[in-house]
Amino acid sequence: MSDYIRNAWYVAAWTKDIGRQLVSRRILGEPIVFYRREDGAPVALEDSCPHKLAPLSVGELVGDEVQCGYHGMTFNCSGACTRVPGQTKVPPSAKVRSYPLVERYNAVWIWMGDAALADPDAIVDVPRYGESGWGVVDGQYLHFPTHYLNITDNLVDPAHTTYVHKKTIGGAGGEDVGVKVEQGDRQVLAYRWIKDDEPVPLFKKMGNFSGPVNRWQYYYLFMPSVSCVDFGGIDAELEPVEENKDRGLRSYSFNFLTPETESTTHYFWLHVRNYHADDAKVDAEVVELMTLTFTEDLDILELVQKEQERTGIRERTRLGIDNAPARIRRMVERLVAAEQGQTEGPRDDAQGVA
Amino acid sequence: MSDYIRNAWYVAAWTKDIGRQLVSRRILGEPIVFYRREDGAPVALEDSCPHKLAPLSVGELVGDEVQCGYHGMTFNCSGACTRVPGQTKVPPSAKVRSYPLVERYNAVWIWMGDAALADPDAIVDVPRYGESGWGVVDGQYLHFPTHYLNITDNLVDPAHTTYVHKKTIGGAGGEDVGVKVEQGDRQVLAYRWIKDDEPVPLFKKMGNFSGPVNRWQYYYLFMPSVSCVDFGGIDAELEPVEENKDRGLRSYSFNFLTPETESTTHYFWLHVRNYHADDAKVDAEVVELMTLTFTEDLDILELVQKEQERTGIRERTRLGIDNAPARIRRMVERLVAAEQGQTEGPRDDAQGVA
Amino acid sequence: MSDYIRNAWYVAAWTKDIGRQLVSRRILGEPIVFYRREDGAPVALEDSCPHKLAPLSVGELVGDEVQCGYHGMTFNCSGACTRVPGQTKVPPSAKVRSYPLVERYNAVWIWMGDAALADPDAIVDVPRYGESGWGVVDGQYLHFPTHYLNITDNLVDPAHTTYVHKKTIGGAGGEDVGVKVEQGDRQVLAYRWIKDDEPVPLFKKMGNFSGPVNRWQYYYLFMPSVSCVDFGGIDAELEPVEENKDRGLRSYSFNFLTPETESTTHYFWLHVRNYHADDAKVDAEVVELMTLTFTEDLDILELVQKEQERTGIRERTRLGIDNAPARIRRMVERLVAAEQGQTEGPRDDAQGVA
Repeated sequence: MSDYIRNAWYVAAWTKDIGRQLVSRRILGEPIVFYRREDGAPVALEDSCPHKLAPLSVGELVGDEVQCGYHGMTFNCSGACTRVPGQTKVPPSAKVRSYPLVERYNAVWIWMGDAALADPDAIVDVPRYGESGWGVVDGQYLHFPTHYLNITDNLVDPAHTTYVHKKTIGGAGGEDVGVKVEQGDRQVLAYRWIKDDEPVPLFKKMGNFSGPVNRWQYYYLFMPSVSCVDFGGIDAELEPVEENKDRGLRSYSFNFLTPETESTTHYFWLHVRNYHADDAKVDAEVVELMTLTFTEDLDILELVQKEQERTGIRERTRLGIDNAPARIRRMVERLVAAEQGQTEGPRDDAQGVA
Repeated sequence: MSDYIRNAWYVAAWTKDIGRQLVSRRILGEPIVFYRREDGAPVALEDSCPHKLAPLSVGELVGDEVQCGYHGMTFNCSGACTRVPGQTKVPPSAKVRSYPLVERYNAVWIWMGDAALADPDAIVDVPRYGESGWGVVDGQYLHFPTHYLNITDNLVDPAHTTYVHKKTIGGAGGEDVGVKVEQGDRQVLAYRWIKDDEPVPLFKKMGNFSGPVNRWQYYYLFMPSVSCVDFGGIDAELEPVEENKDRGLRSYSFNFLTPETESTTHYFWLHVRNYHADDAKVDAEVVELMTLTFTEDLDILELVQKEQERTGIRERTRLGIDNAPARIRRMVERLVAAEQGQTEGPRDDAQGVA
Repeated sequence: MSDYIRNAWYVAAWTKDIGRQLVSRRILGEPIVFYRREDGAPVALEDSCPHKLAPLSVGELVGDEVQCGYHGMTFNCSGACTRVPGQTKVPPSAKVRSYPLVERYNAVWIWMGDAALADPDAIVDVPRYGESGWGVVDGQYLHFPTHYLNITDNLVDPAHTTYVHKKTIGGAGGEDVGVKVEQGDRQVLAYRWIKDDEPVPLFKKMGNFSGPVNRWQYYYLFMPSVSCVDFGGIDAELEPVEENKDRGLRSYSFNFLTPETESTTHYFWLHVRNYHADDAKVDAEVVELMTLTFTEDLDILELVQKEQERTGIRERTRLGIDNAPARIRRMVERLVAAEQGQTEGPRDDAQGVA
């Protein structure tokens, strides 16, 4: 049994990437074809003709329907077969699954479970998105050759930044600063303040700190696999408290992880910041820096994934920094079990960044 | 248990491709080495030295015998070991299998089953081959990454041509014209006449039709996996009957499918036509057109094969057009079961194009 | 259960290839990281951090210790964890295996079994190594895509040279000359003299024989997988006896086989000769010739390996020349069983070239 949470919204694509072309993407192991109706609404259908299993995505879009490229069977936006060339009767088994979609934050979100439960309000909130003084970079994508929970482990783990990201966002000052963990019903927060530390390379470049800083890393993980890193720094003379965060450099780095298969993950990301909000040059620098940073993660996680697959073992010792990752894995297990057992899983309507 | 029919003739190679070199090819999963004796007769031996399993095909041809490239064990045309360097006694287990071969239609045919049953008269008849006024293109080969029965499905399925071959031999006029099926003991025929239709691109190019045509598609499948497509068109004013077929453009397209493995197939083809019989330029056009057409089949079948392998499912719904394919699969199952149960399978000496 | 002998010295690397960089190599299926301490002593540790299984080899060397590139866990030369950033307590499970190493013959030897049994005196003796009048070529490496016992089969099998190495060290004169076999407790010797034969190409190039030669092939195999070929030729007028061997061209070709995985092998080799001892040009020629020769072996063994893997069969007939290979395989099985059963295996302190 796979460890996918199905009753959840996953980013399937960026809005800009779905149009009047058939686009195929595998999500939670299922092949799905995406396109837009003539009125612009996005559609997601099972990408597998029920006849011989040819991918519908190699067929043609005919109006709002998809015509299979093998024998011309045609399916409408709900997945019902509307035509079988050469016969008038459509067999009851001639249908494909359709998936609920919602567009938000320039992304197309897909609901992989019971359509009756697909509530758009359950989509995570991205703070400051679209607010004046805050710049947004979105539309970014990486393909990770690794299980999505290895990535969520990493995304609530501030400790790795010192070693994996020493060239980008890491700093040696954080090596021995412990991480605190708070847990909600459907979210985990791992966080720390590193006080009176030298500004990391990013701060030196983007800010004008004259001395040491108090910097913070707040790693949120919302079920099933949305990561938000609230990251920034303020003058060391300011108290390291929530209220002061906006007085320095601050960014929210959102990573939307969508399992592709048991060993690969779609990694969509967007970034909201309070510095140089309308500066396209800084946008480009953010893309470059974050891509470099996430690629550093990818490189180490790919090696970890390979070794885990080779040995069938995920870890041989557990450390203090594994507190948050372990909570997330238990939370996922609990939700998957609840879904598969048809019982009601936990729910936290109030999930979101503090 | 694989679904190969063993007591049958398969095309192993084109005559031109077997000579005084060792050539290796896998057939029904078995590695086989081919060469010609000094007198020109073709030979087929198991391509696996019984000593350490080195392929004999990387050894040398010494007169009419094959010498292994590892330790020099030598085998004659019947597969008997004639020499073990360094010892005088040849162990009884030192032998390889030899296979009956027949050359016909410029092809080398191999019998994969019980040699005692290998009757050359059982090789399929190619009508008009070598007759005056009929042109032949042969020697053609494609490698299909798909199970051979997915290809036979396709070759008794006129309906796919409208969608898969719209650029070549398909025409929209055929979309809703049903297919009739007739069955013999060892053959299936699926056919239809499409009446009063616009000439397909091929007819426009090769014929001089001034108006609409009656065109036909007769798809024969002879056990185990020889396909013959009798294809052509006549003026729409002529009755759509067998007797009139030679009054228009007509061709016999033979496809000899030889399973390589459970998921790959050798696809040999030849083509007999009654137009521009001695025109080398048209020969080249036939090669180009048919290769393009079969590659269109290959492209969709490769996707179907991959999806079937991924899911372990071959189809989720069955249509009217699956009548002939289903008959063939049942016929194959029946013949395989008969062979494996050592009972007498069905036999139809009269098989052939009407 | 794999058929590795663990209580044995294997060449892990050439001395020149281990330094102040982290080098990763898999041996007996285990990932191992190699480096040198600041005092020059070589170190071998399990290349897998116990935390998340990241390879330590992508981390950093810090003094004499290795720091993991993921979270900075640090291990000393004995594999003990000396630091976990962010916490003061080191969990008992936070350790990696370390392996005994010895440097000899410009190679780094590793002991893969019980460290308490690692006796440097058990390393095989290379005769004439470093003696005046004898030239040495070492530092050579090939990667074989084949099980190590398929290579040992080949290295006590003079018969294959006639067919596999006809361009290099083989000669047709040896085709029908039988091989004698002698066995010790931990070694097998297969040998033959080929008398009154034409000098092989190598002899013609390196020696000044005016007529036919008596030439010998002595193939030693020392447990677990060290091969020594004592190879040479003398004037045919000299008696073909041990005492006369140094009166002609003589070489010892050592092949140190180290299993990488069940289907791949590290192939280290060195070569000791009594001709043109100090001639760098001849050194280069030896490298070229031996590399060519071993690549001929690799080519045929790769095919054998693939066919054995495809069929699950290793041989279908057994010949007289399989005497020595069969003895070695039985000896390996016996030693592996002894190790795994915790009983005392056979031991021959006196193993070595005659």
